[in-house]
Amino acid sequence: MQTPQKIAVVGSGLVGSLLAIYLRKAGHTVHVYDRSPDIRQIEFSGRSINLAMSNRGWKALDGVGVGDAVREIAIPMDKRAIHLVDKLNFQAYGQEGEAIYSISRGLLNRKMIDLAEDAGAKFFFEQKIWDVTLADATLHIGESERGAWEEKKYDMVFGADGAFSRIRHRMQRQSMFDYSQEFLKIGYKELNIPANEDGTHKLDPNSFHIWPRGEYMLIALANLDGSFTCTLFMPFEGKNSFEELKDIQLVETFFAKNFPDSIDVIPKLTEDFFKNPTSTLVTMKCFPWTYEDKIALIGDACHAIVPFYGQGMNSGFEDISILNDMMQLYGNDWKTILSEYQLSRKPNADAIAELSYRNFMEMSSKTADEKFLLQKKIEKLFSDKYPDLWIPLYSRVTFSDRPYSEALAIGDAQNKIMESVLKMNDIESNWDSVEVENKILELLQKQ
Amino acid sequence: MQTPQKIAVVGSGLVGSLLAIYLRKAGHTVHVYDRSPDIRQIEFSGRSINLAMSNRGWKALDGVGVGDAVREIAIPMDKRAIHLVDKLNFQAYGQEGEAIYSISRGLLNRKMIDLAEDAGAKFFFEQKIWDVTLADATLHIGESERGAWEEKKYDMVFGADGAFSRIRHRMQRQSMFDYSQEFLKIGYKELNIPANEDGTHKLDPNSFHIWPRGEYMLIALANLDGSFTCTLFMPFEGKNSFEELKDIQLVETFFAKNFPDSIDVIPKLTEDFFKNPTSTLVTMKCFPWTYEDKIALIGDACHAIVPFYGQGMNSGFEDISILNDMMQLYGNDWKTILSEYQLSRKPNADAIAELSYRNFMEMSSKTADEKFLLQKKIEKLFSDKYPDLWIPLYSRVTFSDRPYSEALAIGDAQNKIMESVLKMNDIESNWDSVEVENKILELLQKQ
Repeated sequence: MQTPQKIAVVGSGLVGSLLAIYLRKAGHTVHVYDRSPDIRQIEFSGRSINLAMSNRGWKALDGVGVGDAVREIAIPMDKRAIHLVDKLNFQAYGQEGEAIYSISRGLLNRKMIDLAEDAGAKFFFEQKIWDVTLADATLHIGESERGAWEEKKYDMVFGADGAFSRIRHRMQRQSMFDYSQEFLKIGYKELNIPANEDGTHKLDPNSFHIWPRGEYMLIALANLDGSFTCTLFMPFEGKNSFEELKDIQLVETFFAKNFPDSIDVIPKLTEDFFKNPTSTLVTMKCFPWTYEDKIALIGDACHAIVPFYGQGMNSGFEDISILNDMMQLYGNDWKTILSEYQLSRKPNADAIAELSYRNFMEMSSKTADEKFLLQKKIEKLFSDKYPDLWIPLYSRVTFSDRPYSEALAIGDAQNKIMESVLKMNDIESNWDSVEVENKILELLQKQ
Repeated sequence: MQTPQKIAVVGSGLVGSLLAIYLRKAGHTVHVYDRSPDIRQIEFSGRSINLAMSNRGWKALDGVGVGDAVREIAIPMDKRAIHLVDKLNFQAYGQEGEAIYSISRGLLNRKMIDLAEDAGAKFFFEQKIWDVTLADATLHIGESERGAWEEKKYDMVFGADGAFSRIRHRMQRQSMFDYSQEFLKIGYKELNIPANEDGTHKLDPNSFHIWPRGEYMLIALANLDGSFTCTLFMPFEGKNSFEELKDIQLVETFFAKNFPDSIDVIPKLTEDFFKNPTSTLVTMKCFPWTYEDKIALIGDACHAIVPFYGQGMNSGFEDISILNDMMQLYGNDWKTILSEYQLSRKPNADAIAELSYRNFMEMSSKTADEKFLLQKKIEKLFSDKYPDLWIPLYSRVTFSDRPYSEALAIGDAQNKIMESVLKMNDIESNWDSVEVENKILELLQKQ
């Protein structure tokens, strides 16, 4: 058991709340600060993308006994529903029984804060942290950046304050701090498919719906109340962009032409389109993540990624699992705990950043591509027969807790093999032949 | 002629001072701010690397008529003097008459400020800029970040305030601002070779002296007063690192073993070693560089690079040449001037960042490598015979004003050719044969 510490967690989002529960269970005093009002008392922002909880997320929740409480608000999705302009295809995510889970970010956040309060964490909302003194874990809090500040000293501070973290902002001013932020030229906008009058879903709730259109795409994930949260991803500027869709008529025409089967199910399309903001997508990397035994960044605050692998929250929750592992291993030696935590997580954070970046192409283009779907069929057939020899990349990322960096490396090797396989003669008709199987076995052995 | 504007330049370094001269010559009111005291009234810091002025720098100076004033404090270096442990080699930088020029950063900075004042720019020293309002080019100035600030409104603000620019800091908080900073694991320390008693140089002043040792190296550039400014580059930690050299005895032993011919010429080795700071090296990239017609970053403030190609100041001065070109082209349309300036410069800033990063390897390892020296000999022979077909990369960067991005692309293509050439049979003895010449011609045609 660790000696109790007085710990501040900055940020009451998903990662901050779950971290608070872990720290409370380890016996520490936990104060959680957030600059925003209590999310349990306000409306949601209209700029969210539904979460897809998968193995790493569940593992972290179950690790502290709150998984089942979250399962109550989760809807399993075992397949992609791929809406082409003229037909609908389905593609299973994994083996029988494997699924990812659609959860409303706002609902989950409210629940996590309740659970953290139940565990004894104290929350302080509308408290703006402007700075932190790294050497003695002191927070500087005030109404405005240039106004009077109050000081709160802790034994340790965790920065779970997201991609634009103030805690990181201070660390950034240290020498030898590596940092990068890169914005996609693609933005996103939340839309909504309401429930039927009887409360049922207008589309299959157990599918992750995608309308892949190359440079842009629409997705929809089910909510408990029968509605779907939809997200339109498209370039800010140029052809087929947010810039182009500047009036009601243009939006209606665009959707009618490109997402014809969405028209009937998104009744408030143009209203929401012009009411909801167009949000940006950023990849942020940095190092180090910790300062001595005093400060640690966690979640988006140290590795913000784009949402196309559904791993933002999952990777943040996995940070907590690994931090907890280190707490078990190193007892009260917080310097080693924090140092081993960042060394373990950094390569995996970089790997999931890369995989997430690449996956926009997979979702928006490849899911509409016959060759890609053929590749997935061949992989699935082989994987079903030789489950130990071939775990597909998506499954490694989503249904396993092996390191992301391993998934990236093995995924690249698998792709090389499949490139050769797809060049075989008449692969379209022979895809399930013994020759193909033998070819894969042969190429695997050469590695 | 442009309509006169009231312009603030933040930063009185080399780029800020030269920019002030250009803006004054264009008829604008120019106020230059610096947080530091006037460099003309203080001692230098002991953390500088001598400058190597080359074509792009001279072009910018001559473009506003101050080149000759600077030539008075410049020493030509037409070759590398490569100090191996047991012998000394020389390697010409370019064609007969081509040279780079050693200049003391401090001396040049003093002269540039004098020249800018002569041109009518007003300087304000020890004025700390903490923030800028982008929309109306207002500077916020005060004693401390949290104290009272005074506001100064301009028509336009140029941020020439270096790698840790406060002007950029404000732009960074805008959405869609791409940014990265990456520190090398290698630091540097200034050392000194004093003049002989009669004021002459202890080493050849017209050589760029390098002691290449793989992971680390020592360089020395001549000063006007007979001394040399030396710089030791080595890793912060690990084998042969600053961390290892922690006492006088260890430093003396290290230099005696690895830089034996330096011992006699660096008398205050250990004194300077422990007095002078160990400084860091950072590559910083960002985009955009400008905001509407109000704000522009220039020099290190938007593209800080490592010093191994001697192009930090040269690329900053070239920014000014290009900005001036745009001023000639677009008259009073400052929005277009700034926008075209950043679009023109960004790919070239990225290219010289990459070339500079790579050049540490060339300087510290390859200059001691027989194969590399052979490659340079072959390139030189071919280039002398076919000057239009083969301009070596170093010359493209250093003795031309063609875009850095072009130099990078052509350099990579040339390297591919030389890889093939160096694999030819008995290349060591046949390097000057007609077969080698024909091989290069053949490979050039294939491109």
